[in-house]
Amino acid sequence: MPKYSIDELIVKVEELQNRVGILEDAHAIRRLQHAYGYYIDKCLYDETVDLFAENGEVHFMGGIFRGRAGVRRLYIDRFRKNFTGGKNGPIFGFLLDHSQLQDVIDVAPDRKTAKARFRCTMQAGLHESAGGRTRQWFEGGLYENTYVREDGIWKIQVLNYRPVWHADYETGWAHTRPQYVAFFSETYPKDPIGPDALEDPKPVLWPDTDVLPFHYAHPVTGRSWK
Amino acid sequence: MPKYSIDELIVKVEELQNRVGILEDAHAIRRLQHAYGYYIDKCLYDETVDLFAENGEVHFMGGIFRGRAGVRRLYIDRFRKNFTGGKNGPIFGFLLDHSQLQDVIDVAPDRKTAKARFRCTMQAGLHESAGGRTRQWFEGGLYENTYVREDGIWKIQVLNYRPVWHADYETGWAHTRPQYVAFFSETYPKDPIGPDALEDPKPVLWPDTDVLPFHYAHPVTGRSWK
Amino acid sequence: MPKYSIDELIVKVEELQNRVGILEDAHAIRRLQHAYGYYIDKCLYDETVDLFAENGEVHFMGGIFRGRAGVRRLYIDRFRKNFTGGKNGPIFGFLLDHSQLQDVIDVAPDRKTAKARFRCTMQAGLHESAGGRTRQWFEGGLYENTYVREDGIWKIQVLNYRPVWHADYETGWAHTRPQYVAFFSETYPKDPIGPDALEDPKPVLWPDTDVLPFHYAHPVTGRSWK
Repeated sequence: MPKYSIDELIVKVEELQNRVGILEDAHAIRRLQHAYGYYIDKCLYDETVDLFAENGEVHFMGGIFRGRAGVRRLYIDRFRKNFTGGKNGPIFGFLLDHSQLQDVIDVAPDRKTAKARFRCTMQAGLHESAGGRTRQWFEGGLYENTYVREDGIWKIQVLNYRPVWHADYETGWAHTRPQYVAFFSETYPKDPIGPDALEDPKPVLWPDTDVLPFHYAHPVTGRSWK
Repeated sequence: MPKYSIDELIVKVEELQNRVGILEDAHAIRRLQHAYGYYIDKCLYDETVDLFAENGEVHFMGGIFRGRAGVRRLYIDRFRKNFTGGKNGPIFGFLLDHSQLQDVIDVAPDRKTAKARFRCTMQAGLHESAGGRTRQWFEGGLYENTYVREDGIWKIQVLNYRPVWHADYETGWAHTRPQYVAFFSETYPKDPIGPDALEDPKPVLWPDTDVLPFHYAHPVTGRSWK
Repeated sequence: MPKYSIDELIVKVEELQNRVGILEDAHAIRRLQHAYGYYIDKCLYDETVDLFAENGEVHFMGGIFRGRAGVRRLYIDRFRKNFTGGKNGPIFGFLLDHSQLQDVIDVAPDRKTAKARFRCTMQAGLHESAGGRTRQWFEGGLYENTYVREDGIWKIQVLNYRPVWHADYETGWAHTRPQYVAFFSETYPKDPIGPDALEDPKPVLWPDTDVLPFHYAHPVTGRSWK
């Protein structure tokens, strides 16, 4: 007599299908976030916007950009205008390498949503021969994102980017000036390229420090972060 | 007549269960080590200690810290006291970003233990406004760790961290002074926050170089590292 | 009556075997490329060459090195001679940390080939005490590689490394001199350690910018890169 009945075996196969699906989801989400980083490197803002769900949002520098309109306002109206003069793609002498690493990816049991933490380490600046304000800086940051699966395709639901430190190349992070970058203080439409809402409380910036909450419980004790 | 008997199919399903389990283990170990890096970033030493097995150990700067008592001595009695004045969490102006990347993870066939190599790239220092000795440095290092699965939960068994190079931000790795950091030379309890044993031979430090042995065989030839 | 006939169940199990195989392939390819990075760190050129398929090739600095002979010419005749004076392994005071991160790995449905993009961030140089020309630089680059599975073992088929920017440590990427590194301009055997062919068009170098084509379609829209 076989070890399992066919009915028992069906249960085991269906369990496996779900477990394999979750592993495929984790692979897809790593791919998605890594692709995001590669698009940002190259000022490919059309491609970046298309990574988001219709009701996706971005948290950035104290502002929340909501829905496709908000996401476009940030990447197309703001970044593309400020960084590449409107071009969808890289320009001479502008660097914005936006490395993605150190994923902690967790797919919900129903496989409809997922959360992930990533780290980002940037090298950015404008070359002295590019005809603008020569500058160069390092930036270290964290992502705590959520993702959604629609029609079998994983998309970014909430991109929550939290820069942790900036450093002018010339002086390093021990000498970062306070308020290295400006938080948003005005919302759209008063600021025509501003966010839909302001984060409350505002994130802190180096040399201030805090802990961006972990979406995951402690891997060994199972205690949630509070 | 079906291609396989139900008995043959059961064998195939059990093989799949094991293969999927190994993939899940690799995912869990990446998560575990990445979580370690995120806790270290933020001086969360309680959370760090809890990632270890009861009989876990840490190899660090020529010292071996053994068991829960040794692991606590390193993270709680030594690092927490020296880095954050006793606080479990980040303090103003102290940076210790401890990136984790480039995993090579190998789970034992019985799924009870695993080995993994990771790389670490650090940006660390104390901000000029923090009221201490202003300093800033880069650090590149390697991990060759072992992990153990207890009651279905992966834990760190041996954390073997090997800094490869340090560099003061101001001068870079071409001008690193010899003995950039001091190796342990005394053991506990003579040194009340020292290791339980000294590594023999001592690790080397940049500008000296060596190869931290690979736990894995060559991926193509299958030859073990010697 | 069971939910599925045994024939239907066999189909499901075979589908799972293929999906699990693809996940294992992705794991093997990440391991392979990460192992490549660790060997390059340590000037282990014999081990590096052995990662390639017999008809493998390397694209590097405008040159194409073809087959086992070409791959050996680059790593053994050129790099080993220039970097370590012929030694297979690290030497005092020479740093070439070659981090691998941000994988986007895609295995072909037949599981015989795969493509992957990786990022590389280097810290390299020669220490002032090493008795040569003291120098130190950062380098950021991309890989767009192909891999092949032969007898169940994944190997590098085409290693296409594209440095994106270089920066002398002292001055940073805002001041990188033009033509920081020289492209190959002569082929083997006229250049006895040159490539078998020249890339046409030549890659660009920072502060010039371009997009190294993505092997993958957009993760959400499914549009191929053109």
